[in-house]
Amino acid sequence: MRITLAQLNYRVGDFEGNLSLIKRAVSKARGEGSDLVIFSELCITGYPPLDLLENINFLKKADRTLHNIAEECRGIAAVVGAPVINTSPEGKKLFNAAMVLSEGRIIFTARKALLPTYDIFDEYRYFEPGREFGIFEFKNKKIAITICEDLWDEQPDENYFGKSRLYTVSPADELAGLKPDLIINISASPFSYTRIRVRQDIFRGKALKHGIPVVMVNQTGANTELIFDGGSMAVKKDGTILHQLPFFEESVFTFDLDELASGNGSRETSVPGHTELIYKALLTGIRDYFGKSGFKKAVLGLSGGIDSAVVLCLAAEALGNENVTALMLPSRYSSKESVEDAVILANNIGVKYSIISIEEPFKAFEEILKPAFSGRQADVTEENIQARIRAVILMAWSNKFGNILLNTSNKSEAAVGYGTLYGDMAGGLSVIGDVYKTDVYRIAAFINRDKEIIPQQIITKAPSAELRPGQFDTDSLPPYSVLDEVLFRYIEQNKPADAIISEGFEKETVEKIVSMINSNEYKRYQAPPILRISSKAFGAGRRMPLVARF
Amino acid sequence: MRITLAQLNYRVGDFEGNLSLIKRAVSKARGEGSDLVIFSELCITGYPPLDLLENINFLKKADRTLHNIAEECRGIAAVVGAPVINTSPEGKKLFNAAMVLSEGRIIFTARKALLPTYDIFDEYRYFEPGREFGIFEFKNKKIAITICEDLWDEQPDENYFGKSRLYTVSPADELAGLKPDLIINISASPFSYTRIRVRQDIFRGKALKHGIPVVMVNQTGANTELIFDGGSMAVKKDGTILHQLPFFEESVFTFDLDELASGNGSRETSVPGHTELIYKALLTGIRDYFGKSGFKKAVLGLSGGIDSAVVLCLAAEALGNENVTALMLPSRYSSKESVEDAVILANNIGVKYSIISIEEPFKAFEEILKPAFSGRQADVTEENIQARIRAVILMAWSNKFGNILLNTSNKSEAAVGYGTLYGDMAGGLSVIGDVYKTDVYRIAAFINRDKEIIPQQIITKAPSAELRPGQFDTDSLPPYSVLDEVLFRYIEQNKPADAIISEGFEKETVEKIVSMINSNEYKRYQAPPILRISSKAFGAGRRMPLVARF
Repeated sequence: MRITLAQLNYRVGDFEGNLSLIKRAVSKARGEGSDLVIFSELCITGYPPLDLLENINFLKKADRTLHNIAEECRGIAAVVGAPVINTSPEGKKLFNAAMVLSEGRIIFTARKALLPTYDIFDEYRYFEPGREFGIFEFKNKKIAITICEDLWDEQPDENYFGKSRLYTVSPADELAGLKPDLIINISASPFSYTRIRVRQDIFRGKALKHGIPVVMVNQTGANTELIFDGGSMAVKKDGTILHQLPFFEESVFTFDLDELASGNGSRETSVPGHTELIYKALLTGIRDYFGKSGFKKAVLGLSGGIDSAVVLCLAAEALGNENVTALMLPSRYSSKESVEDAVILANNIGVKYSIISIEEPFKAFEEILKPAFSGRQADVTEENIQARIRAVILMAWSNKFGNILLNTSNKSEAAVGYGTLYGDMAGGLSVIGDVYKTDVYRIAAFINRDKEIIPQQIITKAPSAELRPGQFDTDSLPPYSVLDEVLFRYIEQNKPADAIISEGFEKETVEKIVSMINSNEYKRYQAPPILRISSKAFGAGRRMPLVARF
Repeated sequence: MRITLAQLNYRVGDFEGNLSLIKRAVSKARGEGSDLVIFSELCITGYPPLDLLENINFLKKADRTLHNIAEECRGIAAVVGAPVINTSPEGKKLFNAAMVLSEGRIIFTARKALLPTYDIFDEYRYFEPGREFGIFEFKNKKIAITICEDLWDEQPDENYFGKSRLYTVSPADELAGLKPDLIINISASPFSYTRIRVRQDIFRGKALKHGIPVVMVNQTGANTELIFDGGSMAVKKDGTILHQLPFFEESVFTFDLDELASGNGSRETSVPGHTELIYKALLTGIRDYFGKSGFKKAVLGLSGGIDSAVVLCLAAEALGNENVTALMLPSRYSSKESVEDAVILANNIGVKYSIISIEEPFKAFEEILKPAFSGRQADVTEENIQARIRAVILMAWSNKFGNILLNTSNKSEAAVGYGTLYGDMAGGLSVIGDVYKTDVYRIAAFINRDKEIIPQQIITKAPSAELRPGQFDTDSLPPYSVLDEVLFRYIEQNKPADAIISEGFEKETVEKIVSMINSNEYKRYQAPPILRISSKAFGAGRRMPLVARF
């Protein structure tokens, strides 16, 4: 039996688009002599559909699309993912289902049993868990179908207050008892740089434990902040990977089940390194945010600092340099070098730029606020006014020319609230809001891997917001090398302050950082969507009360 | 046996504060000869704790507080709600538990079985459902304890694609089989103006169905956007309400169980009308957002329109007029009357105000953008610049004087995207972002119920953003009387466009409105927290993909 893994880039709710992607892959698979083509979880709707699952017309369209695909499945069967209505009078309204389509009909349905409801996942919001486990016979083979989390009943524990078994049932154990020849897993497994190896280990572990080959098909591409890396794989029963599909691109791969069962040979794909993975993920995130929302052009503020430099390079690579505009918006406190460095960078990558001084509007605000503010010292108010004037200009550009403003704040700043709401925190999409400053430098080095694109002086100079004379980030923050270590432990690893201190970090520093994180929830609440590359990004995956004493 | 219902206003994570509230109520109950004092769901942590439940130190403090309360329970028992760790190696990390404390010990624990995971609720994110049902004997009575949703296994169906039974188990049925003399329900049941009567019906229905008295204790007060109305009640076995505690205030009420069992007499509390409920809810929301985050003073932009007028009155009532500042920020397009009306209002309620023209900064922006924008028509860009200049000034005021900026956008505008991101959409808290324009008028009338506080001309003039000459809301929107009817059906009732049209609304109007709602998700994503008064507010209870084609 020949099997095809179809790793595609779906758009949420775009039933026509998704149908046409799927049809094309069915044709290709048929052309390659395949018997069974496998698509990813909820491929018909795209993942994550969120509360569109509560719209009855959305569900009707999904059902019509499903039947259209079934009609395409002549001489070949397909495994697709779709929401189906739970017709029982009790329980959640839907099931998250995998269906086998053949000769115009649905010949088998599996329901997802383990519904992730942590971090960015909310599946129990919509779906009733499946409670029955069955296999289907196809071409004299017994095949089990699972959906994503179904094979993640036991997970490695990255979290300080974590737990490896969040579920009370193991679908793999249940299904293995039925002695299938193959376990299929259709996934919508979002990227995080810590999860690539973990995911391989999960599927390899299941194959080895049960002595049954496992194939996993993931989607690729981004939907808003969630980026899917693909990396679909076929794992032999001894736990070795026969083949892994590429990361961050569509791919359709056909192979013979005998090859998977035989246990000989391996063509394991090499996994890109940490920085390259993040780089590719961010390109995917930018490209799809624009492409899927029907926009082509981006604008951003280019300060002469490292963050906006990296975002500019990413945007130019993802969208084409002709589609990106950089605005240099110097104030009375901006150094001459900042603008010069920004101009060099813009020229290096060939993007349009304009230089607009914010001095006149700043003076106008100073003037009209003088009566109210007289007798008071300049403070963060005046710094914020400058940042907000820049946002007014950038958003005016965005409005006038139909560009999307890219936000250039990094995760270290976002964590400690080092940023101005409605100022440098503005934008339609935050590109590096899940990237720590130390990783921003790594990405800069990666961008410069072949030649100097980002001028060296942008990389080497001390970070400064340039909102008052002689200001440096380290005036109010610990060095980023320390800050990022503490942030990673507190945010990604969920360690409380005392546990971090006991690792040897300075008590005062840790407590200050933790207090800054907690007291700035209100700012992050209004931040743009942030491309997620870590196991814990700010946004829907981290839900903190704003008004709390803790 | 004498029983006390303790309806209190907790703050999330404020263990010391919550402990002291609870201790005081225990003392009061003891003084009233009570045998059992009942507190609300998760009273020790405050509700909703959200992802603070993933912080191990938070859980340790909750546990310590629980034991402190147990020590207070001498000569009296207490029912309290707290998270407890699930020590089983399998399943979610916590249970949402109710515990009976007596003479320093925990003498009984009930675990919440039905975990709401819809709208604003995410309980399955943290909790393993309870699967066992037991009763405890106390003073020769058999008592069952349930937690909030446990008695909501069957709900009336407000939703077009709804379902009345989301769960596959009924805790009330299970417990009724054990023949308890009383069913206790500890709740954290947020306010919505549609749910007051529904909630009464749920508890009355359970009492009547099983012929067992039911007491329900809810929390009161607001935590960020969620407002809890209290309204705790004691229901007799015939389904009549013996007593309902007041709405939106703390209250401790003691009664005799015999009274509840006897079936004679009723002291049902009258429920305030629609507009008064919303008015009180919003006052509670403002007061607690400020009080619980340690702020006293508010600033807002007073345009001379109805929305900011109503928000100003609410803020002055909630915070004291001495703590509220109104800024009138006229542009070249503002009518003289708008400023005059605003001044009359500010004087009527005795709040400080300043008038600051935005003309100079507007000119400065026009000037610096002229080279880039030359040859292009004025459009929404210039309108947005004005709205954003106002936000710069209001936020400068907020920064300089330590005020919180109140947002004054209403739900009708937020729905169709009629507002400027980083402009009039700015603010620390959205006061009326869940109030439709037609209800804003009702609240204005309520505010003016005894005398004219809001000048009549503010109420009667045609709504206008005054961002270009002769602009009126109805230029680009249907009349609010129609708009709000369509919005309510689409948002609260979840009806698809075709169902709304089939009710007799104009096809073109409905389709335009629905399209405006869907295409403005990106704006609402960055909106401030919105005080929730309806069954479906924008924010955490409505999760829509930004990049989707539907």
